[in-house]
Amino acid sequence: MRILGIDPGSRATGYGLIHLEGNRLHHIDNGVIRPPQEFDLAQRLLHIYQELQIIIQQYAPDCSAIEQVFIGSNARSALKLGQARGVAVLSAATADLSVAEYSPLQIKSAVVGYGLASKSQVQLMVKALLKLPEVAQEDAADALAVAICHAHTGSLNRLTTPPRSRTNRGLNR
Amino acid sequence: MRILGIDPGSRATGYGLIHLEGNRLHHIDNGVIRPPQEFDLAQRLLHIYQELQIIIQQYAPDCSAIEQVFIGSNARSALKLGQARGVAVLSAATADLSVAEYSPLQIKSAVVGYGLASKSQVQLMVKALLKLPEVAQEDAADALAVAICHAHTGSLNRLTTPPRSRTNRGLNR
Repeated sequence: MRILGIDPGSRATGYGLIHLEGNRLHHIDNGVIRPPQEFDLAQRLLHIYQELQIIIQQYAPDCSAIEQVFIGSNARSALKLGQARGVAVLSAATADLSVAEYSPLQIKSAVVGYGLASKSQVQLMVKALLKLPEVAQEDAADALAVAICHAHTGSLNRLTTPPRSRTNRGLNR
Repeated sequence: MRILGIDPGSRATGYGLIHLEGNRLHHIDNGVIRPPQEFDLAQRLLHIYQELQIIIQQYAPDCSAIEQVFIGSNARSALKLGQARGVAVLSAATADLSVAEYSPLQIKSAVVGYGLASKSQVQLMVKALLKLPEVAQEDAADALAVAICHAHTGSLNRLTTPPRSRTNRGLNR
């Protein structure tokens, strides 16, 4: 099973692709989509969408996963993040991929083993679990982490629910 | 010039199409896209995107306009609105339409004549300006209002800037 993890943002959208074979995880690719700074909002969103479409076409993942957003107190930031996140979710949906959502606590628990792990601990564990030659860029590491979380949780889910069941794994509003 | 106005929202996305001929405005169509309530986020965003694509293909507008979001204090609402708004902006961008953005003050000034007009005043003026048989639904009326605002402002813009210049009319981040 190929899993696409996405860490959306208007300035930087991380992506990470992994392959789950039995219980073993393999790294396929990771990177960060950075729309040129001079782009306006419409151009930025189009850039993120098109880059994700290229990645999905290239690697043909079976499903995707995205981090549940931590809602801070800043509504302006939430709006900007929401715009990028909406486009990221749409990218997966137009390619007919299921979109699973995990909280930061679930992701850290799945990757590091406890929910209060630091960012650098997550990055080091992502590197170790996927045998990366070096630590991935922050947004790409976060995208790989949510993909790893989905690999673990998805394995458990498959014991009780049919694969690619949108009802169980889909996002709530 | 055909203008598509969009009033995005995760529950209801209004759209309105008008035609500007010289100084005269003509109504083409308006409506509200309401994704079924049982849809999850990915399905909702896909629904909004696909419906807007159909509308754009059907009416072939020359440009689009969207309301600048009033940022309230609720970050959770801002995130949800952002997701729908990102998809709406992307819908126009994938169809190679410019996306102009106007504040509520600009829209009310353009439609009613002063910036503190009430919602019902805007709806009645939209009805009068476009000779509608009845008042449009709230989200559709808001979409028509931003299209009317763009028709007025766009006419002024065209005196000084070339049409469809993204640099001038594009959104800032």
